[in-house]
Amino acid sequence: MRDEFEWIKSISPAGYRQSSVIQGIGDDAALVRGSAWDQIVCLDTMVEGIHFTNQTMAPYHVGYKALAANISDIAAMGGVPLYYLVSIAIPSTWKEEGLSQVYKGMADLAEAYEMDLIGGDTVSTKGPLVLSVTVMGQVEPGRKLLRSNAKPGDVVFLSGTVGESAGGLSLLLERSVKGEFTAEEAQLVKAHQLPEPHVGPGRILAASGKRVALNDISDGVASEANEIAEASGVVLTLFHGKLSRSSVLRMYPEDQQDQWIFYGGEDYKLIGTMSPDDFSQAASACEKTGYTLTVIGEVSSGEPGVRLKRGSQVEPLLKAGYNHFHN
Amino acid sequence: MRDEFEWIKSISPAGYRQSSVIQGIGDDAALVRGSAWDQIVCLDTMVEGIHFTNQTMAPYHVGYKALAANISDIAAMGGVPLYYLVSIAIPSTWKEEGLSQVYKGMADLAEAYEMDLIGGDTVSTKGPLVLSVTVMGQVEPGRKLLRSNAKPGDVVFLSGTVGESAGGLSLLLERSVKGEFTAEEAQLVKAHQLPEPHVGPGRILAASGKRVALNDISDGVASEANEIAEASGVVLTLFHGKLSRSSVLRMYPEDQQDQWIFYGGEDYKLIGTMSPDDFSQAASACEKTGYTLTVIGEVSSGEPGVRLKRGSQVEPLLKAGYNHFHN
Repeated sequence: MRDEFEWIKSISPAGYRQSSVIQGIGDDAALVRGSAWDQIVCLDTMVEGIHFTNQTMAPYHVGYKALAANISDIAAMGGVPLYYLVSIAIPSTWKEEGLSQVYKGMADLAEAYEMDLIGGDTVSTKGPLVLSVTVMGQVEPGRKLLRSNAKPGDVVFLSGTVGESAGGLSLLLERSVKGEFTAEEAQLVKAHQLPEPHVGPGRILAASGKRVALNDISDGVASEANEIAEASGVVLTLFHGKLSRSSVLRMYPEDQQDQWIFYGGEDYKLIGTMSPDDFSQAASACEKTGYTLTVIGEVSSGEPGVRLKRGSQVEPLLKAGYNHFHN
Repeated sequence: MRDEFEWIKSISPAGYRQSSVIQGIGDDAALVRGSAWDQIVCLDTMVEGIHFTNQTMAPYHVGYKALAANISDIAAMGGVPLYYLVSIAIPSTWKEEGLSQVYKGMADLAEAYEMDLIGGDTVSTKGPLVLSVTVMGQVEPGRKLLRSNAKPGDVVFLSGTVGESAGGLSLLLERSVKGEFTAEEAQLVKAHQLPEPHVGPGRILAASGKRVALNDISDGVASEANEIAEASGVVLTLFHGKLSRSSVLRMYPEDQQDQWIFYGGEDYKLIGTMSPDDFSQAASACEKTGYTLTVIGEVSSGEPGVRLKRGSQVEPLLKAGYNHFHN
């Protein structure tokens, strides 16, 4: 490993895409021009051995996904991602080539959104690699696409399809990153390693100016739907037959699909609720930009929770995402 | 350890001090109102076994100091700290009592600055505890108290005194947190465990509207002075006899004092340069609020670097702060 200061130089961008950046990396803190828009900020941490291993993710994927998870949180607030900062704790087992790939994964995704790396901290550790990414973005003032916005009478919708990431993880755990995959399987693997945050649909929903409850799907549909139900004090009823499933996922038994969709997570699509009339407009606006919003359920009053309706049967759909203290 | 969701509830504030907070903890991301002021953001990471051990820091100190280091970076940009976000990777060896103390250390310091905890991520790790804090603040538009602002003819100044933190660390390494200390020694220990960032002087310097080069002292005077010299392309000459030393530090041999002052770090005071006339005004404004700015050197043109003048002798003062990849 080179000198810390040289390393920081090597990962510092030559210039900034956002003209609002006054001072990026290289001083005590980053300085960016203020804005009349509301500011959004989030951070997400990935730990080697917990969130990823070299069996399922190459270093490039680790960086890409850490940033994608944060961009997805900005998308869930309807925002435009602008800047990111990176904290990395590096064990001696990681060499410069792998670390450069982590930063390249972030840089490539950042380029697609015209985002700038404006700061960070690089430290050593005697434990596993810990990568923590902070992302800042903005949204038109007064928009609040919060989980607590759902009301009885709303439809529940999903952007795109879900479950592919968990399907890809399953394949990677079976065959590792070095495994051979069919073209269809490779789609699932890609969904796990290089997920696409849904900034586009989030922007359309924010720009609509309508009341929208919104969550990104980081922990599986069951967990995210329950968060909306709890925060809004409503019942979400999901229709099993309406859940959008990709053609690739349909190769697997339905029980397996359901497991991945409801409890898999890391899809980084959006789940939300809005009034049926507002939804129609938003869905057609999304369709024009190549994104599909699908109605997958409805909101009603009652003891807060999520129900899954399959034919005439209705059963509770419990929150059962990954809990960091039960492993 | 309780359930992750319960734990997050336990560390979430009951309300927010800044009226600009629209949504804090509890949604995909935090949402705060925009501002016409320039925005400042920084992050700082502390790793158990590298930046602290339980020999020198109680959990309360770990939290307090992690936030203090970031507030100091905001101070070095002349800013008002407003919000913070916390990423924590927790090993199973840390129990809830200790973790609560880490958050209490941050919360107590945040209260002093009316700052709000608005987000974060809590994950588990099989390695040491990693605490990464992101702080956001703001400064009047157009102020840029950058390291690159120094010009020949400037004076070099220091806010307060330095070296105490390294002195305290030395005592703690000798006797541990459980050791007995005299009243004077306890001052040094406190400087190490509960450092006071210099937001006040930073605000006065920013409000002056003058050209100011500024750095906070996280890595010792030698390293910070060299950063200004390199970024500005100038020579900083420091006068050995002018360096402000606290009465407590004077108990130790001068060589020892020098070692702590130049290479100790973690003092979180400010070092900077400005024109002699502007300095006089700023110094008297600081004096009124209880902070002392002392002239410790001068800026001249030449091959960028730092010189230390002791009597008629002048020697180079090399950058020799802690480098994370040489340990």
